[in-house]
Amino acid sequence: MTTHFLRIDSPDQSGLIHLITGVLFRHGVNIVNNSEFVDQETRRFFMRTEFAGEADVAAIEAELVGILSEGANVRLARGGNRDIVVLVTREPHCPSELLIRHAFDELGANIRAMIGNHDVLEPLASQFGIPFHHVPHEGRSRAEHEEALLEVLQGYDPEYIVLAKYMRVLSPEFVARFPERIINIHHSFLPAFVGANPYRQAFDRGVKMIGATAHFVTDYLDEGPIVAQGIVPVDHTHTAADMAHAGRDVEKIVLARALRLVFEERVFINGARTIIL
Amino acid sequence: MTTHFLRIDSPDQSGLIHLITGVLFRHGVNIVNNSEFVDQETRRFFMRTEFAGEADVAAIEAELVGILSEGANVRLARGGNRDIVVLVTREPHCPSELLIRHAFDELGANIRAMIGNHDVLEPLASQFGIPFHHVPHEGRSRAEHEEALLEVLQGYDPEYIVLAKYMRVLSPEFVARFPERIINIHHSFLPAFVGANPYRQAFDRGVKMIGATAHFVTDYLDEGPIVAQGIVPVDHTHTAADMAHAGRDVEKIVLARALRLVFEERVFINGARTIIL
Amino acid sequence: MTTHFLRIDSPDQSGLIHLITGVLFRHGVNIVNNSEFVDQETRRFFMRTEFAGEADVAAIEAELVGILSEGANVRLARGGNRDIVVLVTREPHCPSELLIRHAFDELGANIRAMIGNHDVLEPLASQFGIPFHHVPHEGRSRAEHEEALLEVLQGYDPEYIVLAKYMRVLSPEFVARFPERIINIHHSFLPAFVGANPYRQAFDRGVKMIGATAHFVTDYLDEGPIVAQGIVPVDHTHTAADMAHAGRDVEKIVLARALRLVFEERVFINGARTIIL
Amino acid sequence: MTTHFLRIDSPDQSGLIHLITGVLFRHGVNIVNNSEFVDQETRRFFMRTEFAGEADVAAIEAELVGILSEGANVRLARGGNRDIVVLVTREPHCPSELLIRHAFDELGANIRAMIGNHDVLEPLASQFGIPFHHVPHEGRSRAEHEEALLEVLQGYDPEYIVLAKYMRVLSPEFVARFPERIINIHHSFLPAFVGANPYRQAFDRGVKMIGATAHFVTDYLDEGPIVAQGIVPVDHTHTAADMAHAGRDVEKIVLARALRLVFEERVFINGARTIIL
Repeated sequence: MTTHFLRIDSPDQSGLIHLITGVLFRHGVNIVNNSEFVDQETRRFFMRTEFAGEADVAAIEAELVGILSEGANVRLARGGNRDIVVLVTREPHCPSELLIRHAFDELGANIRAMIGNHDVLEPLASQFGIPFHHVPHEGRSRAEHEEALLEVLQGYDPEYIVLAKYMRVLSPEFVARFPERIINIHHSFLPAFVGANPYRQAFDRGVKMIGATAHFVTDYLDEGPIVAQGIVPVDHTHTAADMAHAGRDVEKIVLARALRLVFEERVFINGARTIIL
Repeated sequence: MTTHFLRIDSPDQSGLIHLITGVLFRHGVNIVNNSEFVDQETRRFFMRTEFAGEADVAAIEAELVGILSEGANVRLARGGNRDIVVLVTREPHCPSELLIRHAFDELGANIRAMIGNHDVLEPLASQFGIPFHHVPHEGRSRAEHEEALLEVLQGYDPEYIVLAKYMRVLSPEFVARFPERIINIHHSFLPAFVGANPYRQAFDRGVKMIGATAHFVTDYLDEGPIVAQGIVPVDHTHTAADMAHAGRDVEKIVLARALRLVFEERVFINGARTIIL
Repeated sequence: MTTHFLRIDSPDQSGLIHLITGVLFRHGVNIVNNSEFVDQETRRFFMRTEFAGEADVAAIEAELVGILSEGANVRLARGGNRDIVVLVTREPHCPSELLIRHAFDELGANIRAMIGNHDVLEPLASQFGIPFHHVPHEGRSRAEHEEALLEVLQGYDPEYIVLAKYMRVLSPEFVARFPERIINIHHSFLPAFVGANPYRQAFDRGVKMIGATAHFVTDYLDEGPIVAQGIVPVDHTHTAADMAHAGRDVEKIVLARALRLVFEERVFINGARTIIL
Repeated sequence: MTTHFLRIDSPDQSGLIHLITGVLFRHGVNIVNNSEFVDQETRRFFMRTEFAGEADVAAIEAELVGILSEGANVRLARGGNRDIVVLVTREPHCPSELLIRHAFDELGANIRAMIGNHDVLEPLASQFGIPFHHVPHEGRSRAEHEEALLEVLQGYDPEYIVLAKYMRVLSPEFVARFPERIINIHHSFLPAFVGANPYRQAFDRGVKMIGATAHFVTDYLDEGPIVAQGIVPVDHTHTAADMAHAGRDVEKIVLARALRLVFEERVFINGARTIIL
């Protein structure tokens, strides 16, 4: 059965839920799930409604836009898998997790292709029947490298780009082409250990837990809105390498969990934070 | 500022949210938080609405009862502390936690009195200025003992009775007098280790995590709807006594967390389960 | 570099560590890690020593057996991957996890073969180059089915058999052939929800956390010594199917974690419990 | 029965465990627990041995010092409660936790006194029969304030000073007087959110988990070796104040847990990290 997700964010005003549900009711929509949230600091209203069955979504959208205030955003998304491209470097655990979930249709997405700045994961992608593009960064400027990436990406026109332990920083210009559409897994409990080699940083600091953070990518490295985080306890017997090893499990699970939330249209960006409905 | 909680559960029907929010809108109510849930198996609808400011709650309640279907329950509760009585035996950690939170107004309740079948916690209660009643069970039948408990309870007319490591089973007749109003903390991850001495059972079974479960008390021992659960990892170095010790922290935190949810009118009983909005 | 694991369990006696480390010292062994534990109830001593470099392990073993009391067990195991066979039914997530870790040499084992009572996972195994044997149970008695399983197993002579969501009960006779060598993942927080359909049981009971338990298989279903457990929080929005879905991540991670402990020779069985050094 | 803890740290050398346990064996010591660890980067050896019954500890210590290399530290500590002084400001939850545990002898310490730079917690301390000293910082330079603190502290000569949400920074000069003897609870998952108002920082960053860190205090604010950490999940419905509220439970439990480890002589400082045996 067809599923639709209605996503609204708007300046808050009295009677908003009544107003919106009125439109849906008049269109005979069958609401399966409905969640709202009002940010009390900014007085902004967020609402996600999942409804089942056929509906005249264009008419609903138009009607809602007509009655909501000017600062409102209304978006109606169809359920089903999203088209994604996955960027990788050398580490296999996050890409593997996505490939396996994809193979058994548990990812919420179609992996259209995998792009690596190294080619070590080409056999893995091939094994799952996913096109792999080797776009090396060596001997190229960042601009040239990103140009080459864009060329490959354009061929697939993905709805989301997933950085599955892609170990290179993307330029603000590149990121700006995919606003709210690039998701990264960072191997620390952000904002602790921003930047390179977070497990070594964690080891040196002697923490008793390590973490992973899935977040949207914005201009500033490791500073985009956080979607999901997880931790795993460690102790003095863990070397930096052991921490990296222990962290792999939480990285891949946190990334997959965050993607599921995003692909189910549950995640709203609210300034530097996310709202998950 | 006055806060009210509107709690509705009802057979699900199309347009219910629109209908209910319409009543609230016409009464000029300022909704701070709103959550709904539909149990897809039983097609029952649950809704909790928190609103701020004065409102003609009697009129709202009457109007809602008028328009909702016969099987609907509507309840409007005022915010603020609930009146409770705490039943204890010998163990101090859960009672202490409640007393401390009460002392600094973080419990969401007024502890009107503490009743113990032993008197060892009398000094603790006194220290916090809480009346303590020693109602010994020795030399009394269960019926006689519960009669004596009831007599003390009637003097306080509490909204909720909290069993803070009260180590005696209450009869179905006693429980029936306080439907959905008795909350217990059980020192295991229910339904594992029902009954007596769960830490010894956990030790004998060699589990790697122990837990605690806060639940409503119903006729059947340890089988009431669960409100909150927590766990703490253990290992082979823990004796049964060490497990009991490690379990205390999670017991008291889980109990306090569950009580907060109940006192904020977030918990709905849905058959054998709870819904927390 | 060669690694060896010395595993000793023995009735406790004064000076045991001194005695054992004396033997190792005289043999010029380079101890990397050493852990001991004494079960205070049974007065049994357990010790695991990891040492690096070449050593005359036969002489060490003989000398230790000579000086330890009669009830002692001494075992010297070489480091490196264990040979295993994986039994599966239909669910792909646990088998996938093992295959991926195996492919990138993070499992601590060589998967010699996969055996399924259904054939749906044959393509998955093939994709990773692992022999798959379809040993259907339909139209066969349990004895006949296990006879067929044994025949396949004998061809591989595995050190461990891993039940990766193998959904059939093994007979005590079968289990007795592989003492302390069969490891299962049960999809609940044992001993809660023993037996069939634990997620449905968990849903019906209204728990707020679901779990997974990796354990050795003994005669009695779901009662073998526990190696590792994990949990994941759930709430009223989870159907029984959602719980099963949420449980998959914790099942596969707990299974992989338990296997690593076993393959690194860290797990000792102590009656109904395990000791992990 | 008397318990002793032997703590040794030393440059690693072959046969060290054999050597040390030989001394204990010859003195007829009954070892209850024994743990060792070798830091593979620095080649430093750490060992904690718990033994029961009377023993000539002076002779044992002297003998060990005689046979160990020059860079070794040997310390024999008697079991039982440590003497501590607790520094507080206004927040009651951590001080309450310590007072309650102390009252029921579960802290592992005697609280000799409480010192506050504000006097709001004086009634709480008095209620538990603990001397409270109000040492205000207002109208005083930091040096003068610390001088006044020292004067009070000298009257109690505590083995450890516990900062139970003491909201002022101590000077390096003050800290240097109590090396490895001051323990603080920081209300974040360090090193995230160093400094003031970590819950506001956490809210602004939009994290999905908040934490607490118990650590030794060194010269540099929030940078001492970490003993224990804990986390609690949060979401978009939490305001900064809600995060602070949710964080209280984890703060007090983590602090109490860390103190127990320290008082049981399990914690060794190894550069910027701790080793917990």
